[in-house]
Amino acid sequence: MSNPSLLILPGDGIGPEVMAEVRKIITWFGDNRGLQFDVSEDLVGGAAYDAHGAPLSDETMAKAQEADAVLLGAVGGPKYDDLDFSLKPERGLLRLRKEMDLFSNLRPAQCFDALADFSSLKKDIVAGLDIMIVRELTSGVYFGEPRGIFEEGNERVGINTQRYTESEIERAARSAFELAMRRGKKVCSMEKANVMESGILWREVVTRVHADYPEVELSHMYADNGAMQLVRAPKQFDVILTDNLFGDILSDCAAMLTGSLGMLPSASLGAPMSNGRPKALYEPVHGSAPDIAGEGKANPIACILSFAMALRYSFDNGAEADRLEAAIEKVLADGARTGDLLGEEGVTPLSTSEMGDTIVAAL
Amino acid sequence: MSNPSLLILPGDGIGPEVMAEVRKIITWFGDNRGLQFDVSEDLVGGAAYDAHGAPLSDETMAKAQEADAVLLGAVGGPKYDDLDFSLKPERGLLRLRKEMDLFSNLRPAQCFDALADFSSLKKDIVAGLDIMIVRELTSGVYFGEPRGIFEEGNERVGINTQRYTESEIERAARSAFELAMRRGKKVCSMEKANVMESGILWREVVTRVHADYPEVELSHMYADNGAMQLVRAPKQFDVILTDNLFGDILSDCAAMLTGSLGMLPSASLGAPMSNGRPKALYEPVHGSAPDIAGEGKANPIACILSFAMALRYSFDNGAEADRLEAAIEKVLADGARTGDLLGEEGVTPLSTSEMGDTIVAAL
Ligand SMILES: CC(C)[C@H](C(=O)O)[C@@H](O)C(=O)O
Ligand SMILES: CC(C)[C@H](C(=O)O)[C@@H](O)C(=O)O
Repeated sequence: MSNPSLLILPGDGIGPEVMAEVRKIITWFGDNRGLQFDVSEDLVGGAAYDAHGAPLSDETMAKAQEADAVLLGAVGGPKYDDLDFSLKPERGLLRLRKEMDLFSNLRPAQCFDALADFSSLKKDIVAGLDIMIVRELTSGVYFGEPRGIFEEGNERVGINTQRYTESEIERAARSAFELAMRRGKKVCSMEKANVMESGILWREVVTRVHADYPEVELSHMYADNGAMQLVRAPKQFDVILTDNLFGDILSDCAAMLTGSLGMLPSASLGAPMSNGRPKALYEPVHGSAPDIAGEGKANPIACILSFAMALRYSFDNGAEADRLEAAIEKVLADGARTGDLLGEEGVTPLSTSEMGDTIVAAL
Repeated sequence: MSNPSLLILPGDGIGPEVMAEVRKIITWFGDNRGLQFDVSEDLVGGAAYDAHGAPLSDETMAKAQEADAVLLGAVGGPKYDDLDFSLKPERGLLRLRKEMDLFSNLRPAQCFDALADFSSLKKDIVAGLDIMIVRELTSGVYFGEPRGIFEEGNERVGINTQRYTESEIERAARSAFELAMRRGKKVCSMEKANVMESGILWREVVTRVHADYPEVELSHMYADNGAMQLVRAPKQFDVILTDNLFGDILSDCAAMLTGSLGMLPSASLGAPMSNGRPKALYEPVHGSAPDIAGEGKANPIACILSFAMALRYSFDNGAEADRLEAAIEKVLADGARTGDLLGEEGVTPLSTSEMGDTIVAAL
């Protein structure tokens, strides 16, 4: 039997740097735990545009469709700001999400004990925080038609369409309830059913799907109140289920509560492939951070934890994922810090590759 | 010359209670500062539905169009959850916003010195915070067509339309730049131009309008990053300009940073009427809080500060607005607290009406 395949797409900015550290981790698991992967690497985002004139080539798209899991670094940068909409680095990522049909985006917002002081929130509000946001990722206003900038009378109008079918809502909801069953058994669904019909349908379908998960406690919240409650008392949540656009904003808000964006991974999952594995793409929540790219300052942990999510969700290897996560908790507890995890105090931070090496050593 | 007219719409939940305190303040200004208003009162939201079967009657709508300023308490409550979309309490408020064409919603997020400890954020992150969010209020996904729940194949689809014309963006932007000129001269505009064409047009128009305000520093931020930055370092902002839906979420997030939602007012302004005053509606940022309605526990300050905004923006009386705001700062500094502003410590809070009386006494 051949090894499972991993497609690595480092992307732009700090993407290649943090991905280099993930490769060390992958090598370690191959050498020491018998987990062999067929790893290949390709371009996405600005890097792909520079090489091919498009933020994702058809060849790379095809490879991603074949891969057992895709690991992505980050896309985007000021260099590409003036590109046409359809050529922007982000379109490469959005094409992957859409064509791989990765409808369920899992974004944990977890506060690491050793880093609780680093949050802008008071320690007792965030210490021990462990939320999972399930964001619908392949529909909504990101992909709805009609869209564009049109002439209307003597001016232009910008249009996007928020659009959700029952089945799109249902599969996202199911994924949230399934996850909640393996966690705290609570789902809070967020929309704006008070002002948007798409939110009314969302609430109705989520309520219907809930009937299949009687053990899970379901609540509904308007998304604006959701943002408030995240800031006020985030620990009230277990799983948050929401749509593509609200999920974009609320998950970033939740991520920042932890104070350590450089720590947060994500998984984007689709339907099972013929081998039973879900289509899957893993990426850190942070962006390409062009301001520090190439300086060896980036924190590779979010990207490494994304690989841990791959072990758990694609390769059904929760034990090895736990091992990797434990190694990371250990190095943090021992005081290992990249620059983003330090205050002003003048401690010398670890470089990106030193942090990678430290984690390998802890494994 | 007749007195300026004030239409009071207490609405639902705690709305009537907090508005009763505003009336004490209005009376005080009439008796002591020669500011007389012709005050009338009417129904909105669930209260209007109970009386007339609609969340805003045509008569009330007409009165609001005539009034020099409208003061609104809050709308909504679980009692109305199962009403048809078009009859929900919120539709009354949305009708007022739309038909009065109140395109510029001003939402200050201000941290009161005496209350900085009350935030879930660390004191140094929020002490002295003073942001103004300008939210476009009459367009975008709140009002765009097509909208609704439609049959499609053998399932239903929920649709809403995000829609902005150049002139809609322009007038909101102008209002933000004007405001910034009287404040810190910084505007940060937030959208998702990386994924939404309406955001591209937004960014383009805001940039164009900026040419008329060379003294103002303009920046652009994606709305997800905006949510993060609000949590991370809110004091970096002066004026934030954003659309209706992003504004709904980001302003609630910003409001909660201050830790005292019961303190935050808002103004919704339209074009000048024939008397030169803008069409205007003032309301607290908090909702109808049905859980504590009728118990005398609500904090009336947000609603009273909304009246202060009316003095400033509708009646060009910044001096009297300052007087009222100073009285509120004073009672807070002296330790006056409603229940929402207390920790667990067992101090007896002031009731809604005691807080109103205390403020009147301080005036
Ligand atoms: C890069 C961008 C297209 C993307 C999004 O808006 O979804 C990002 O913000 C994210 O949350 O993954
Ligand atoms: C009550 C509701 C319709 C309203 C909105 O969504 O605009 C509220 O959340 C607000 O922000 O004023």
